[in-house]
Amino acid sequence: MHILITGAAGMIGSKLTQALIARRTLRGQEITGLTLVDVNAPTPPVGLPAAALAADLSDPASAPALIEQRPDVIFHLAAIVSGEAEADTAKGYAVNLGGTMALCEAIVAQDDYCPRLVHTSSIAVFGVPLPDVIPDDQPPRPLTSYGTQKRMAELMIDDLSRKGLLDGVSLRLPTICIRPGKPNAAASGFYSSILREPLSGQTATLPVSEDTRHWFASPRAAVGFLIHAAEMDTGPLGQDRSLNLPGVDATVGDEIAALGRVAGEAAVARIERAEDPAVAAIVAGWPKGFDPVRARALGFEAESGMDEIIRVHIEDELGGKLPD
Amino acid sequence: MHILITGAAGMIGSKLTQALIARRTLRGQEITGLTLVDVNAPTPPVGLPAAALAADLSDPASAPALIEQRPDVIFHLAAIVSGEAEADTAKGYAVNLGGTMALCEAIVAQDDYCPRLVHTSSIAVFGVPLPDVIPDDQPPRPLTSYGTQKRMAELMIDDLSRKGLLDGVSLRLPTICIRPGKPNAAASGFYSSILREPLSGQTATLPVSEDTRHWFASPRAAVGFLIHAAEMDTGPLGQDRSLNLPGVDATVGDEIAALGRVAGEAAVARIERAEDPAVAAIVAGWPKGFDPVRARALGFEAESGMDEIIRVHIEDELGGKLPD
Repeated sequence: MHILITGAAGMIGSKLTQALIARRTLRGQEITGLTLVDVNAPTPPVGLPAAALAADLSDPASAPALIEQRPDVIFHLAAIVSGEAEADTAKGYAVNLGGTMALCEAIVAQDDYCPRLVHTSSIAVFGVPLPDVIPDDQPPRPLTSYGTQKRMAELMIDDLSRKGLLDGVSLRLPTICIRPGKPNAAASGFYSSILREPLSGQTATLPVSEDTRHWFASPRAAVGFLIHAAEMDTGPLGQDRSLNLPGVDATVGDEIAALGRVAGEAAVARIERAEDPAVAAIVAGWPKGFDPVRARALGFEAESGMDEIIRVHIEDELGGKLPD
Repeated sequence: MHILITGAAGMIGSKLTQALIARRTLRGQEITGLTLVDVNAPTPPVGLPAAALAADLSDPASAPALIEQRPDVIFHLAAIVSGEAEADTAKGYAVNLGGTMALCEAIVAQDDYCPRLVHTSSIAVFGVPLPDVIPDDQPPRPLTSYGTQKRMAELMIDDLSRKGLLDGVSLRLPTICIRPGKPNAAASGFYSSILREPLSGQTATLPVSEDTRHWFASPRAAVGFLIHAAEMDTGPLGQDRSLNLPGVDATVGDEIAALGRVAGEAAVARIERAEDPAVAAIVAGWPKGFDPVRARALGFEAESGMDEIIRVHIEDELGGKLPD
């Protein structure tokens, strides 16, 4: 079992790598090779035969060299984020679309080869107007460059899967919460930082009202989605290989209440309100909740609620306990 | 007014070129330059300053050289047909998607440039199950490589238009009928040949039953759509730049009845029945009729019925009269 991970140096890519090393098997087979790729070479992992390479998929030579080794499973996570794709149109299309096309074309060019391709798509394929709870058959209508690029990639993966040239699954990941690391400039950053900073004794700023609602899963759940997508029977997917995934439907107020239950009112007191109408306007265009009947029936699982999402963060990022 | 036409050597491209030469103006401005491009150099036209070039848009050097001249209006017709895109996956993506992406990227790379881009899409963006009459808000769900490539191009053009980097319109053309020229191997070929060959005193073969229903416009109407799309105000399109176009909703039986009315029963007698279940199975997956409210409100017009489609063919291809 040879596995290729693109975007392996990113937050999800690193956690996926660690999870594969801990499992040692995928699809019932021993993992005998792991190729990790990112624009900057990922840290070579310990515990499995692995190659860690620097490669830019928008460079025409990159994908054929990676696919020549005929990996059995490909986790295609490489992408630039939505803010950058919106600001730098050419780069967004070159990386998010061109990179995925190059990967697919290299796969198609191999004879008698049909790898499982797990592609991280996004709920950004949906644009307003949207129902309060989005059903599985909601037509994608992206209103950002990032969402457009993800939807284009989904369509190509559907078509090539129909033709038996690859065996693809596109996962429309919920917003990842609690995202570990430093606060960043992403408009969605506050959803994580209003929990992450108070859990570490720091203050955080809340730029929107408490009734702002969104759809979340933990980094651990995201890794679980990826591994399940690599192992599942894709037959029941039919022609539509894109899945809305389970998540936690929560308002900012729900996040804060869960923080109080898990970490106490002192943690809640570290959240400072400073309304930012620009951020509020951006998040108003985002999906709120989903009813992912199809993915749940196919065995995908997320957390039961925001309390569990916070406990996962404490276990995975804070060594199992809150700082004194 | 400088105009670029890709796919200019094709049937629609040639007729569009002739129509522009006859008009001499577009958008109220004199046409001062016409650049015609195809994989094989188009015949240089007479009557306007024109360059006729051989270029393959899937070659990375082609699009930048064409766009450097900053044409005001681009008619992007270049594509390989659905049968070839289905049989040669790599070529279909390279030409139909890669060529469109290269053109768009070259446009984006120019500063302070926002040309009108008229893109010929297709009703192949729709896949079964479909309602009997397709409304404007029917979600595209392509089930062929050609339809997938066209839908991907539509999404990119929507996104770049939203950002003001180009001013795009994607036209989902009806099946063109009566297509001039020789019979070809396309599964849709019989829709034209059962009219075209009898009108010229030849026999034609009908491979499906007379209740087979589809959506048609003449070559003349298609050229009219393209010119209208170049001249229209795109403001009312909003974020969705793709249009289902008016056409004639007709069964094969309607075609034959119209042939009888226009050309007599001797013409009808030249149609031979030879059912071909393979062809019948292909066309069963195609759209039947549309209710293109949006395009009609925006001023797009097709023929009133199959009789008019036949008369257009007699006028434009047969010198205005039937052979003796």
